[in-house]
Amino acid sequence: KALCQRIIALPYFEHFIVVLIAINSIILGLETSTFLTTSYDSWFLLAHQLILAVFILEAIIKITAVAPQWKKYFGDGWNLFDFSIIILSLIPATGQFAMIARLVRLLRILRLVSAIPELRLIVSTLIRSIPSMGHVLILSGILFYIYGILGYHLFHKHDPELWGSFGLSLLTLFRVITLEDWTDVMYVAMDLNPYSWIYFVSFVVLGTFVVINLFIAIVLNNLQD
Amino acid sequence: KALCQRIIALPYFEHFIVVLIAINSIILGLETSTFLTTSYDSWFLLAHQLILAVFILEAIIKITAVAPQWKKYFGDGWNLFDFSIIILSLIPATGQFAMIARLVRLLRILRLVSAIPELRLIVSTLIRSIPSMGHVLILSGILFYIYGILGYHLFHKHDPELWGSFGLSLLTLFRVITLEDWTDVMYVAMDLNPYSWIYFVSFVVLGTFVVINLFIAIVLNNLQD
Amino acid sequence: KALCQRIIALPYFEHFIVVLIAINSIILGLETSTFLTTSYDSWFLLAHQLILAVFILEAIIKITAVAPQWKKYFGDGWNLFDFSIIILSLIPATGQFAMIARLVRLLRILRLVSAIPELRLIVSTLIRSIPSMGHVLILSGILFYIYGILGYHLFHKHDPELWGSFGLSLLTLFRVITLEDWTDVMYVAMDLNPYSWIYFVSFVVLGTFVVINLFIAIVLNNLQD
Amino acid sequence: KALCQRIIALPYFEHFIVVLIAINSIILGLETSTFLTTSYDSWFLLAHQLILAVFILEAIIKITAVAPQWKKYFGDGWNLFDFSIIILSLIPATGQFAMIARLVRLLRILRLVSAIPELRLIVSTLIRSIPSMGHVLILSGILFYIYGILGYHLFHKHDPELWGSFGLSLLTLFRVITLEDWTDVMYVAMDLNPYSWIYFVSFVVLGTFVVINLFIAIVLNNLQD
Ligand code: NA
Ligand code: NA
Repeated sequence: KALCQRIIALPYFEHFIVVLIAINSIILGLETSTFLTTSYDSWFLLAHQLILAVFILEAIIKITAVAPQWKKYFGDGWNLFDFSIIILSLIPATGQFAMIARLVRLLRILRLVSAIPELRLIVSTLIRSIPSMGHVLILSGILFYIYGILGYHLFHKHDPELWGSFGLSLLTLFRVITLEDWTDVMYVAMDLNPYSWIYFVSFVVLGTFVVINLFIAIVLNNLQD
Repeated sequence: KALCQRIIALPYFEHFIVVLIAINSIILGLETSTFLTTSYDSWFLLAHQLILAVFILEAIIKITAVAPQWKKYFGDGWNLFDFSIIILSLIPATGQFAMIARLVRLLRILRLVSAIPELRLIVSTLIRSIPSMGHVLILSGILFYIYGILGYHLFHKHDPELWGSFGLSLLTLFRVITLEDWTDVMYVAMDLNPYSWIYFVSFVVLGTFVVINLFIAIVLNNLQD
Repeated sequence: KALCQRIIALPYFEHFIVVLIAINSIILGLETSTFLTTSYDSWFLLAHQLILAVFILEAIIKITAVAPQWKKYFGDGWNLFDFSIIILSLIPATGQFAMIARLVRLLRILRLVSAIPELRLIVSTLIRSIPSMGHVLILSGILFYIYGILGYHLFHKHDPELWGSFGLSLLTLFRVITLEDWTDVMYVAMDLNPYSWIYFVSFVVLGTFVVINLFIAIVLNNLQD
Repeated sequence: KALCQRIIALPYFEHFIVVLIAINSIILGLETSTFLTTSYDSWFLLAHQLILAVFILEAIIKITAVAPQWKKYFGDGWNLFDFSIIILSLIPATGQFAMIARLVRLLRILRLVSAIPELRLIVSTLIRSIPSMGHVLILSGILFYIYGILGYHLFHKHDPELWGSFGLSLLTLFRVITLEDWTDVMYVAMDLNPYSWIYFVSFVVLGTFVVINLFIAIVLNNLQD
């Protein structure tokens, strides 16, 4: 246990882990090259297993260092995050799980955030700023819900590709709020009823107004810190 | 009357109403499923009538509690809102009124805002921030009015789909100000006269400038609170 | 002269002028209706001439009231604006000037701004905030100039519709900075040279950065007031 | 040396250089006219060589003025910038270097920034504000990296034009974050797997959230100055 504590205290320990995650990230980037994956596939696999081994070792060291006060390790959200990535990595990546295994490997890049204190801080700040947007988020949720149901009832027969179900209607509304080709959606709806513009213009105005207020809530929250 | 006052004071009374509105909202969401509406249509109708009954009871309780000082109930905008939803719900939903009845049912979701004090506060704040944008809104109104008339006279013969009437011109200008495929509109206009870009670029610049100032007006208003 | 001063001091004088401009604006709006213009064209003409007569009278009264200190009238930008609209309105609207006459009539709507003190104030504030953006505007001018010349030389042979001249290149860059279908422009350019994305992505990043700083300059300027 | 110092101190010296750069910029603008370049090509070439000669002279004067303390000249970023433009201009513009020579000439317009103190200040401020965005930039880098690799693996077989390589995937993600026709990309991906919207909507939400925080970082940085 004392040895583990001394290892963690080593200045090189943290740097070593960060460098390893960086190498891991670069390997994951290289794997997008068809040429490299066909020629060096076994090497990539080996690298992934080596890195996983080091991550497991790191977790063991960290847990041993605080044993038997497990809470010191598992009480920290970032440690839990590191630990769950390891657990997920141990799921055998065979058959239909191959895609999931690949996703879990990608999540290891996120360990860059948990391993670099500055990034950990900024992400914590971002996450802690979400409650300050809470009420505006609920409001925009209600807005989406009402316009989603209304849009489904109004347009689902006329334009089933965009309004064919409640879920599709919400997706279409999200598209409208990003102002992405929203007039194309409107012009199709206006073929059905020339007054459909009321639905779209009011949603764009209300939606933009709510988004601006969300934005302001974030800014004010940051200014208070 | 004393009984009514005691009921309103009950901590569970408000929670019960909120839960009921939530259930109502979920039912309205479920009604977008074709499968569910064909199988359980009568159940949905029953639920709506039950919920309406509870809402009427709630209004009676609240009104009795303050009787005979009616102003205490009807002087509050939120109570008025709840009351008008009930009145509108009592209109028979037959024939051509079916669509309106559906809309009124959707409005009941908005009762979530009137029933949760935090949301009521935020919506009041939003509404009270509108006058602070007043002058900028008038300015952008004048901008739209002038460009609308000008755009109609310039392009209504060349591109009647987008500029065929004053109303259509305003809708097209609203589209341009959201920067939604505005160059498509411009390129068509430039086929008529290659200098048409002056109209569009000036409107985009002025419009964006006014929108930014609207935005600032809201921010400053929030900062003052 | 004393009479003129008394007229101007009348509380109804200003309201009368504002109402007249509003009527003028509504008439201009009604003239977008083909039905109305064919039936009542002579009435509209008469109204325009009557309103012009009142505007001339108003200017004469205001000038007489300050005579012979002409500077009191002509030294004010808003009065100059009102005066030039009258002068422009007196140009005979025959032949090729018909379009210009129509434009001048539209400008009369802008007199709403000069006649309502609150709007006059807000426009003055907006105009006075332009110098604070001066340096950022020059910077974005240099950015447009360099990318405009470069874009012309790179793409004018490959895509003459969008890059066929320096002016067209600037217009295309303005389109790119509003993020309007900018990838369509890029994909065409990438057919010529797959590295063209560098040109576009760098322009979008630099442009957005400059626009954000312009925005901040306006906000800071408003906060200082 | 004393002469050089006196020349630099001359009030007209700086103005003369600024005017020369402005003339250079105008010539570069005129060169986009096919008519002018075919008729006056040799004159343009002469002008470029003359201006280059003056720039060389300017650099010699400035260097002589501080000799032998070279650091006073080369220690300043702006002087280094001016110096490298001269060096790059001396590369012979023959054969395949013609395009590079043209680019270097365009860079001379940027000397406007280095020659006008106010612009120099604002650009320095902008550049100095980049580190304050550092951590948010790293975060968005990680976001792009993960979504880039994931997008490549998910869609590169289905839609090779947009996701055919890691680089193309990053370009497509940049397009999505500018909200430019991002639904077109999504609808193609949803043909492969109807749950693809999760990938896009999550990226738009996270991306917008990060961009807003980048924006706030710049604003807060400016407010502190
Ligand atoms: Na857009
Ligand atoms: Na678009």
